[in-house]
Amino acid sequence: MLAIKKNRKRLDPATRADLILGTALRLFAEQHYNAVSVRDIAEACDINAALIYYYFENKDALLRQVLGQAIGQLQAAYDASERHSLNPAQELTLWLKVHVPIAPMITRMVKIMADYSASSIRDAETDQLILKFYVREREFLESCLRRGIAGKIFHPVDVASTARAISLQLDGIFYASQARGDERIGQDIENLCAIVEGPALCTRRR
Amino acid sequence: MLAIKKNRKRLDPATRADLILGTALRLFAEQHYNAVSVRDIAEACDINAALIYYYFENKDALLRQVLGQAIGQLQAAYDASERHSLNPAQELTLWLKVHVPIAPMITRMVKIMADYSASSIRDAETDQLILKFYVREREFLESCLRRGIAGKIFHPVDVASTARAISLQLDGIFYASQARGDERIGQDIENLCAIVEGPALCTRRR
Repeated sequence: MLAIKKNRKRLDPATRADLILGTALRLFAEQHYNAVSVRDIAEACDINAALIYYYFENKDALLRQVLGQAIGQLQAAYDASERHSLNPAQELTLWLKVHVPIAPMITRMVKIMADYSASSIRDAETDQLILKFYVREREFLESCLRRGIAGKIFHPVDVASTARAISLQLDGIFYASQARGDERIGQDIENLCAIVEGPALCTRRR
Repeated sequence: MLAIKKNRKRLDPATRADLILGTALRLFAEQHYNAVSVRDIAEACDINAALIYYYFENKDALLRQVLGQAIGQLQAAYDASERHSLNPAQELTLWLKVHVPIAPMITRMVKIMADYSASSIRDAETDQLILKFYVREREFLESCLRRGIAGKIFHPVDVASTARAISLQLDGIFYASQARGDERIGQDIENLCAIVEGPALCTRRR
């Protein structure tokens, strides 16, 4: 406890927990969850590993918090945006655009989810976290499409397969930014918005 | 050389090199290129590590061969398909469908490319290999679209952004199959074919 108190001097607990989570997000994404130890994260934060265990039970708990915080940031960015008086097509494109300023964080989140799923590690809570993230995304997309179709803003497309295609396009955008290293997230999301607002989906030019 | 000769008894060199490449593909994708040693691959193949160095100069060379072989298999599958008398829209959907039977291999290739690019490892030849793969894919998609537009099969869409969207959708399909673990590649590619053949792109219902 003495060591913890000494280290605590410079940062308040919430700031330090954020520093740990941010560093873990970066290291997990650059390397692999398996290859990064709590000690590596502590060293990168310039703190004692014991301090990480003060905030997080173990590496699994840290992974869940890292993913949970990233998902929470995306949701918070959307909640904080001005959605008053938007129609469902505009809600959808606003949600897509909310990804752009936080793209580096989402790229890392997407990479960690892929590593986790490709590995043989299985943690029921992490599985649930990732599953819920995609269910929530699907429900949001399907709700926009369904309401847009009802309001004759969208053509009567197949809701499930259209929501799936938009969701996959978003995954592809973040995956590609990483794998192709071409840093085109902003432009790719603009293109996706143009498809959503274009004649294939929308009943009239907006 | 004696040890190599002893091990060589059971498999001919080409078969053994394929075994090494296939095992490396699997291990690199499940774990991470950095975390897998030549020794790990040798153990999984039940051969001596020295034998791997007989076929492959080092781990970097092995990675290049793994990616090169995967890219080659995709190309070979397309080249072997019956393309006689297809129009550009049919060429495009045939190419998309060629991915389905070799999906597990491509999912692994896609994962390794993402790991490689996210890491700080840089190898000029591997960079070139990945870059060429995506350039070739883009050129194929753009060629189909351009010829399809010229032949009035496709609407006069923007070739570059449409090719990019198809390519990202394909990346998203393989990424999602891994990260969401939902095994929907066949169905997702069918959906993508339906979009390519649908009214948004095609001038008439096929």
